[in-house]
Amino acid sequence: MTTYAGPRTTAPSTLARCRATVEPALRAAVESLHPQPRRMASFSFGWCDADGTPTAGPGGKGVRQALAVLATEAVGAPAEPGVAAAVAVELIHTFSLVHDDVMDGDERRRHRDTVWKAFGTGPAVLAGDALFALGVQTLAGAGGQHGAEAVGRLAGTLGDLVHGQADDLLFESRPWTGPGAVGIPEYRAMADRKTGALLGCAMTLGPVLAGAAPPVVAALSEAGRRLGLAFQAVDDLLGIWGDPRTTGKPVHSDLRRRKKTLPVLAAMALDSTAAEHLTRLLGSPEPLSSADAAAASAIVEAAGGREFTMEDARRHVTAAYDCLDSVRLVEGARDELVALSAYLLERRV
Amino acid sequence: MTTYAGPRTTAPSTLARCRATVEPALRAAVESLHPQPRRMASFSFGWCDADGTPTAGPGGKGVRQALAVLATEAVGAPAEPGVAAAVAVELIHTFSLVHDDVMDGDERRRHRDTVWKAFGTGPAVLAGDALFALGVQTLAGAGGQHGAEAVGRLAGTLGDLVHGQADDLLFESRPWTGPGAVGIPEYRAMADRKTGALLGCAMTLGPVLAGAAPPVVAALSEAGRRLGLAFQAVDDLLGIWGDPRTTGKPVHSDLRRRKKTLPVLAAMALDSTAAEHLTRLLGSPEPLSSADAAAASAIVEAAGGREFTMEDARRHVTAAYDCLDSVRLVEGARDELVALSAYLLERRV
Repeated sequence: MTTYAGPRTTAPSTLARCRATVEPALRAAVESLHPQPRRMASFSFGWCDADGTPTAGPGGKGVRQALAVLATEAVGAPAEPGVAAAVAVELIHTFSLVHDDVMDGDERRRHRDTVWKAFGTGPAVLAGDALFALGVQTLAGAGGQHGAEAVGRLAGTLGDLVHGQADDLLFESRPWTGPGAVGIPEYRAMADRKTGALLGCAMTLGPVLAGAAPPVVAALSEAGRRLGLAFQAVDDLLGIWGDPRTTGKPVHSDLRRRKKTLPVLAAMALDSTAAEHLTRLLGSPEPLSSADAAAASAIVEAAGGREFTMEDARRHVTAAYDCLDSVRLVEGARDELVALSAYLLERRV
Repeated sequence: MTTYAGPRTTAPSTLARCRATVEPALRAAVESLHPQPRRMASFSFGWCDADGTPTAGPGGKGVRQALAVLATEAVGAPAEPGVAAAVAVELIHTFSLVHDDVMDGDERRRHRDTVWKAFGTGPAVLAGDALFALGVQTLAGAGGQHGAEAVGRLAGTLGDLVHGQADDLLFESRPWTGPGAVGIPEYRAMADRKTGALLGCAMTLGPVLAGAAPPVVAALSEAGRRLGLAFQAVDDLLGIWGDPRTTGKPVHSDLRRRKKTLPVLAAMALDSTAAEHLTRLLGSPEPLSSADAAAASAIVEAAGGREFTMEDARRHVTAAYDCLDSVRLVEGARDELVALSAYLLERRV
């Protein structure tokens, strides 16, 4: 059990430090792209407006790059492999956001238009492809003795991402009840592929490039996957109860879209009366009204779906701590990883 | 200079032999995909209809897989690295077709609906991503001492493909004349990235995996790039003068779409009167009528654009022969490469 007396620094300052470490290399990588996908990539990182005007927007939270940097520090390796890993993982993450927004038809992300909304569907497909290719190129170019193993791991993660997204899309067309319904184990397997795999990869690539011992790599990988599951659970909570002013998404957004997320699946599993009500509300083909979305959110909460999901997230973070405790890591970096993990549970955005 | 007395076999039988060598591994790789992208991938390889019913359709010509197998045989290596290279390259090629059809809005390919037309845009984006990821995974999994170098080369090719496609898309919005017009050198640079890079990669990956000497790899790479330029030139000819019954595309298809292809750019460079006529016909924003497309094709031919392009293709194939002659290769495989190259010049589909 981690006895955790307080970090040498807070999670927001860790995120800022890691961003400052990674951003020059990330910008240099994006700079190598053809001007058209470069513009779209810069837009999706929050570096410019759609017309190319530089912005000081925060972009994403930068969780993946921070995990890549911290995990590499935690094995006592120099900064370079961590930066290469972070750049590759941020590029692949952004590729998946850009393409997922096309597939899901989402128009807003991080308080601005999505790439397809701002530039068109065809260009957004190209921008995603460019980010994908650049991510693989970056890691393949990091080279060294362990380059092949790192690229192999990234390739496996790419397969997981696609598989998870395919499941997530299919879940939408499946029933809420009956034999074809989506169960919680199946939901977790999807979330592990769609979110867990890339966080596990983020915490592994730098250490692999640096030649860390296999048991250490395995522990960091599992810690990352667990943090990914926790991250997805919190995302699911924010998708229903998040504040639109901070999330940038409409209130009850996932319920309006009838998305099969953990809080709803848990509520239905925990309470058969709630399940009947929710199936009636969410199973209808008509658009969900604000009142119905509010009613559904109250039913999910009363049935225990919100608390179940929060508890699930906590459980995964605890499991991640256990993984970090199971191997010998550099203490300062490990403490920052722990603080960042706790922060991920409490995030509002 | 290649003294070429006739191949031990004809190009169509070489294509069939290489297809038979590669297809089991290609099918096994596709079989590992999630069922939804697997169905779309199988459809795009011509193995099944949109509803999953198996078909005996020929799919593509299989030029890239044949080049991968033959180049590997030509360096005296065992079959395995050639098959891994062929599978990776066919997957990446098919990824690019699926996504390019989304970006270009093309509805027909190989006498059937394109993937986005048959399954929808979002699913087609996912199918392309799945093929892309699987291509990288396949090569990363081929491993061995030279796996990292092979993956690095594939990653560079992915960057080229995206860059070439971005140029090709931008060419459409650029003027036919004046300072912003697309010149022939710029067109060649685009074609080298969009088509040459992957053919060069196809002829390189197997030899690299097998540890072939760098000068041999360099010669095969250049031969493949030249064949790619020839291939693209012939594609441009078929896009205007191809028989719709064999190409599966409408007559004068590239002219109707006002595509900036080599025959048109050459005609405009060779004959200023033709340039004026063509600018008037192709520069108008209205859809091109059948009569106008036929007139444009006649102008391009009379101005010498057709012959220029055919001569360009021949020149690139001769350069490819010179590359093959510059290094020591296994004779039978080299002869098949030469016969296949000649066949690519004469193809009607």
